[in-house]
This record gives sequence, structure tokens and C-alpha cells, in this order.
Amino acid sequence: MIRVGIMGYGNLGRGIECAIKQNPDMELKAVFTRRNPKSVTILTEGAAVYSAEKAQSMSNEIDVLILCGGSATDLPKQTPEYARYFTVVDSFDTHAKIPEHFENVDKAAKEGGNIAVISAGWDPGMFSLNRLYANAVLPNGNDDTFWGKGVSQGHSDAIRRVAGVADGKQYTIPVDKALEAVRNGENPQLSTREKHIRECFVVPENGADLDRIEQEIKHMPNYFADYDTTVHFITQEELNQNHSGIPHGGFVIRSGKTGWNEENSHVIEYSLKLDSNPEFTASVIAAYARAACRMKAEGITGCKTVFDIAPAYLSPLSGEELRARML
Amino acid sequence: MIRVGIMGYGNLGRGIECAIKQNPDMELKAVFTRRNPKSVTILTEGAAVYSAEKAQSMSNEIDVLILCGGSATDLPKQTPEYARYFTVVDSFDTHAKIPEHFENVDKAAKEGGNIAVISAGWDPGMFSLNRLYANAVLPNGNDDTFWGKGVSQGHSDAIRRVAGVADGKQYTIPVDKALEAVRNGENPQLSTREKHIRECFVVPENGADLDRIEQEIKHMPNYFADYDTTVHFITQEELNQNHSGIPHGGFVIRSGKTGWNEENSHVIEYSLKLDSNPEFTASVIAAYARAACRMKAEGITGCKTVFDIAPAYLSPLSGEELRARML
Repeated sequence: MIRVGIMGYGNLGRGIECAIKQNPDMELKAVFTRRNPKSVTILTEGAAVYSAEKAQSMSNEIDVLILCGGSATDLPKQTPEYARYFTVVDSFDTHAKIPEHFENVDKAAKEGGNIAVISAGWDPGMFSLNRLYANAVLPNGNDDTFWGKGVSQGHSDAIRRVAGVADGKQYTIPVDKALEAVRNGENPQLSTREKHIRECFVVPENGADLDRIEQEIKHMPNYFADYDTTVHFITQEELNQNHSGIPHGGFVIRSGKTGWNEENSHVIEYSLKLDSNPEFTASVIAAYARAACRMKAEGITGCKTVFDIAPAYLSPLSGEELRARML
Repeated sequence: MIRVGIMGYGNLGRGIECAIKQNPDMELKAVFTRRNPKSVTILTEGAAVYSAEKAQSMSNEIDVLILCGGSATDLPKQTPEYARYFTVVDSFDTHAKIPEHFENVDKAAKEGGNIAVISAGWDPGMFSLNRLYANAVLPNGNDDTFWGKGVSQGHSDAIRRVAGVADGKQYTIPVDKALEAVRNGENPQLSTREKHIRECFVVPENGADLDRIEQEIKHMPNYFADYDTTVHFITQEELNQNHSGIPHGGFVIRSGKTGWNEENSHVIEYSLKLDSNPEFTASVIAAYARAACRMKAEGITGCKTVFDIAPAYLSPLSGEELRARML
């Protein structure tokens, strides 16, 4: 039985709790929170909620600690900190800062004699794996990644910062025509605008200037200016009823050529269609938590990513079972 | 530089030769054949063609020997035999016999102090990987694999054994409706007939009874009787002109539920669209040949499958490069 601790109980932490329920070789031991533990109600009978400070004293009762903080400020501190005392898994997703995060975590994990898996999830994570496999198999080719249809938390936050906006949600949507061209191996040179569109559902405050809000959103640098953006004004009730989910997904496509004269074309496509971004991310993390515990039991230490972990470690099945059933 | 030997120079062997050309860290050292070496012309300048018997004496000149024989009779003998002397990779694809093949090869490879990668290709191979990853991530779900559109060598051979048939080719085609239902997470219970159709292009001998041929094909047990099969009679010229390729592909789809009450659905889909089945298989093998050589250099021995090999081993890029570019 793998005894799991969860650090941070937001959408991702709750997703981890749900994932543990589906994996019979795992049990939730404790949830750690920076809030008042008494104010946090979890779903799992028999698991406890403690203050985050208590975690360190429980290193003998927890086989793997899953870090559910944010990538901006929490994980850069937390993952190296806890890797000294625990086998840990995080889903650090600031792509550009992964090399730096890796170095910091690797040092701490090695000093602690632990395994730390970083950037487990779907992007980074399953998408990264598919980029690597497809590139290794088709060295002569082109990559494209499309995201959506799904909710972008960052863009939704940006909308809500506009004056006169009470609430809002943004969907990132891949452009069908671009997707088809890539899928057909046409290797199109696509601008940012040609790959994705952005659709916003905005609840205005009473008496707000809708036209000004729409223009402000559409011209917001970095977030919307480079995209074709549509803005729909709706009521809070409509937003709650039709846009309360956190769906996401996307496509990783590699097209490439083989043959002595590059005469044959191939397309490798991996796609996800997810009702709940945090729950799917949590499900990936749970599988990598299993892998981390197994690798630690073999004496392996240091920071690992999805690239460094043999697939068999993720499955509860034995090598014999995997070969007989899935190969 | 990884020095590669190819055992057997048919479609797959030639595919390996083409794949080596695309991988700057590999060079083709020699092709071994059971035919008269003088009768075999290869594409690579500077590589030699030898009789198969000569291979064993060249174990110091070759880092990895790729076995391109058939799964029915060649590989069950060849892979254990050569694993004693070489790091080897095969694409053994008789799914039901993989466990037995694994045991035989594992023993030989360990005795020889070598690595032997078996069943590298796309199914088994990339499809297997995707089944494993998707099952580990979504333990509560359903799998489906569809093949095609593509040429089935076994079914084409079966057509050509029918009396009165001069030549023929068979395409396996997934049924769109079934694919859509699986993709939509409907978890349909699909019969063999509902998943794939079989389309045959047949060149009859002069004066052959076309109706008898068509009935004989359509009712052939195991091969066609359980499928909706269409038979088109065409000329040898049409066959040569329109059906000389060896395309293939398919879809691995897992749909699953997450959430405390299984309230959220997810679909993971991996698909391949391949102009040349043997060249793509060869491209996968080439990547695993690189992995095998690296693992051997680390002192790892025994039989391995795609499940046992960490993805990073497949790529010519370093860990740092992979994290910076692909994670």
C-alpha cells in the first residue's frame, strides 16, 4: 500500500484524492494545508487534515508527498524543500523554468536520498512524452501542439482584471483548418492567430460600458491581441450554469518523412479530450507517484521527469502481466 | 557512432537502412543475408553485404544487430541465438507468443551479457506504450484499438491462395461509426464485424469464375467470414499502379472516468497514419536500437520491451536538451 500525502487542497489536491480512490494500491494518509485545518473538509474517510507545518514530522508515515501548489511561487520553494524529506511529485508547468527547477530539486532530492518527479501532468507530461517519442521515431519531421477546446485559467483571470467585469471565463479553441493542415502533413507555417481562437464569456458589472470592455479584452497584449477573440456578455447565472466546468485537452502532432529519398509520409497524433483538467492532471500524477515509490525502493534518487521513467513503473501490473495483456 | 548490422534484407531491412540515414549518430556497418550476398544490392555506400553465417565473427564490429526476419519461424530462433553475441532488436509481433519469446530471449541475453529489445514497432510497440500509459492514468476506463486503413499482409496472402487468383491486396478499414462512438466515450460493445471492414482488390486468372472467387474469399473462416468484405476485380496493371504501397495505421483510444462519483469523462487517443508500414516500423526500431546501446553501456542486460525503457534513452538529445526543448 502506497501511503500518500497531499500538500495543498484546491482543485488539484481534490483531484489527487479522487485518483487515489481509483488506485487500489494507494491510500490517502493526510492532507496538509496552509489554511486552518479545521476549515478544510475532505472526502476520504480515515484520512486526516493537518497544518502544512506538521508534514515534516510525518515523513515516516508517508511514502509519497504530492505537491499541489502553484508553479509561480509555491512549487519553486516547496519541491526542493520537501524533496529533502519525502519522495515527492509535482506538476510544475512553467515550461521555460523547468531546467532551473530541475537543478534545484535534483540537488535537494539527492541530498535527502529521495526521488522527486517534477512536471507530471499532461502539458508538461503526457504531451511532452509524445513529443519525445514522435521525435525519436521520426527525426525528419515537424511538430505542432494545439490546446483546447478548454478553459485557460490565466486568460480567465486576465478578463476578470478588466474594469467593469464581475466574472468571466475564457476558452482556448484550436482552429480546425490549421489542425487539418497539420494532420494532413502539409507542414503549414502557422502564425499564433492561425492556430487558436479565444472565446470569452463575460459577466459585466451593472451599468458597465460593454463596448469598452470588449475592446480592452481584444487588445490586451500577450493575452488576446495576437488572437481572433470573441466576447460574449452573459449573466452570472448563465456563467454558473454553462461554464462552471474546467474542461481542456489538445493535440500533439508530428508529421515526418521516411525512405531513401524521403518519399513516404507519416503522421503521429496524440490527443486528449478532458472534462476536468485538474482531475486528469491528478490522475497522471497518481501514476507517477506509484513510479516514484517503486524507483525509490530500488535505491534510485534525484529529480526525474516523465522522460526518465520507464513506462512499466506507472502500472500496478507486473512485467509478466503487462507483456501478456498490453504489448 | 552506433555501428548497426541488419540481419535480413527485405522490406523491413531496407526500412532500417533508410532510418539509419536519418539518424546522424548511426552508421550501417553490414547487411547479413541468407541469400547469395552477391545477389543483394544495398543502398548505403561503404556498407558490406555478407552471408548470415558470417555475423557471429563480427560481434566486435557491430554495436547492435537488428533482426528483420519473420515472427512465425525466423525470430523465435534468431533472437535468442544472436542475443548471446550481440545487442539485438527485433519486431516480434505474434502477440500471444510474446511471453514465451521474452523468456527465451531474456535467458540468452543474460548469458551473453547483452541487451535484447523485442517487439519494437508500432503494434506491438507504440500502440502498446499508449495502452500502458492510458491505462495507468485512467484506471477506470475502456480500451479500443482500431487498425487501418492499411494493407494486411496476412489477408493479402490468404486472397492469393484462392484458386483462380493471380494477385491481390487487402485493406483493413476501421468503421467510422464505431470509431466515433468510442471517441465520444460511449463505450460501445462492438463485434468484430462492427469494428473493421475488409476491402479486397483481386486480379483473377484468365477465365476464372469470379463469383466463386468472391464467395470463397467472403466466407473464408478467420480471415473474412466475420467481417463485411467487399471484393473488387481489377487488372494486374491497376493493382500495380494503384495498390503497390504498404500503408497502414490505426487508433488506440482509452476513455475513462474520474471524480469522486465518476462524474467526469476523458478520452485519450493515439493515432498513426503511415505511408509505409515497414519504414515506420524500422524507424521505431532504430530509436530502440539507440536505447539498447545506451542501456548496454550502463551495464544493463536481459530482454527488454518498450515498457522497460525510459523514453529519454530513445532520443539523441541529452537530458538537459530534452527538458529545455520538449518537456
